[in-house]
Amino acid sequence: MSFSMSKASLPSLEIGLNALSGVLDKAQAFATSKKVDPSVLLGTRLCPDMFALTRQVQLASDLAKNGMARLAGVEPPRFEDTETTIDQLKARLAKTVSFLKTLDPKKIDAAADREITFPLGPTKKGHMQGDDYLSHFVLPNVYFHLTAAYAILRHCGVELGKQDFLGGIRMKMT
Amino acid sequence: MSFSMSKASLPSLEIGLNALSGVLDKAQAFATSKKVDPSVLLGTRLCPDMFALTRQVQLASDLAKNGMARLAGVEPPRFEDTETTIDQLKARLAKTVSFLKTLDPKKIDAAADREITFPLGPTKKGHMQGDDYLSHFVLPNVYFHLTAAYAILRHCGVELGKQDFLGGIRMKMT
Repeated sequence: MSFSMSKASLPSLEIGLNALSGVLDKAQAFATSKKVDPSVLLGTRLCPDMFALTRQVQLASDLAKNGMARLAGVEPPRFEDTETTIDQLKARLAKTVSFLKTLDPKKIDAAADREITFPLGPTKKGHMQGDDYLSHFVLPNVYFHLTAAYAILRHCGVELGKQDFLGGIRMKMT
Repeated sequence: MSFSMSKASLPSLEIGLNALSGVLDKAQAFATSKKVDPSVLLGTRLCPDMFALTRQVQLASDLAKNGMARLAGVEPPRFEDTETTIDQLKARLAKTVSFLKTLDPKKIDAAADREITFPLGPTKKGHMQGDDYLSHFVLPNVYFHLTAAYAILRHCGVELGKQDFLGGIRMKMT
């Protein structure tokens, strides 16, 4: 019956980021089979003022690592946004998951009542209570970018299903 | 410091579904100003084998109400999928939020270790532990459909920003 901030976040984020890595594998296979330069997929966006695929992946990574680092009270690693290939984006996702594994679940659990301060754009700052920050900012934002990346690739014609989005969840089927 | 299954879900779902209702308001205003039949927006999809906007909204509603009803151990209301207008979809979202408010948080909290059984397509069933079902199935699926609906409307040219997706969260800005 024990449920906690860390339990509500670390496994979900790990599953979601790993699922995105699998989605990128399918994008690579699609590009190869269609003889399309993968950079075409990476530069695709759903509308002119939405981010392209590369940035969606970077943002999923950033929201997860920065959000959880703030809740755990540690400095997040800084990833330069220099990825230009699918392999590099997959490496970034793997690095993000590795970083999440270093965080102390107890510190995350203890952050429920603590005020979290985070940058909102270049000059402004947001302030939220820890539990709200996790449930109403970090998780929705990460899922937003995971879904946007998936949707861009569906839009490009990559064959993906909901299971590719949900990833390696513990489910029995009968 | 108290965090729980119900706290990790009911407020987030309410905020997310209400945010989608606000997104639909902007879709209606866009249709009016562009003299576009709103049904064009409701029938838009990001690729031929993804659901159109109407179905994305219905699925966000269904995943939230059915998922949380199963966790609370009650029968969810059945909504017929007959909506053809933005107002009808907004009414469905409002009904979903009203239903979520009737659920007993304590019953949801007590479901962490319970096996949840749910339909997967017409013949198969999924089985997950309650806490996994919430964190790895219900919430990701709801956010998937909230994001897909938002992305379809961005794709159509409706002016939306991340705040429209996040909705009425408790955040101070400085």
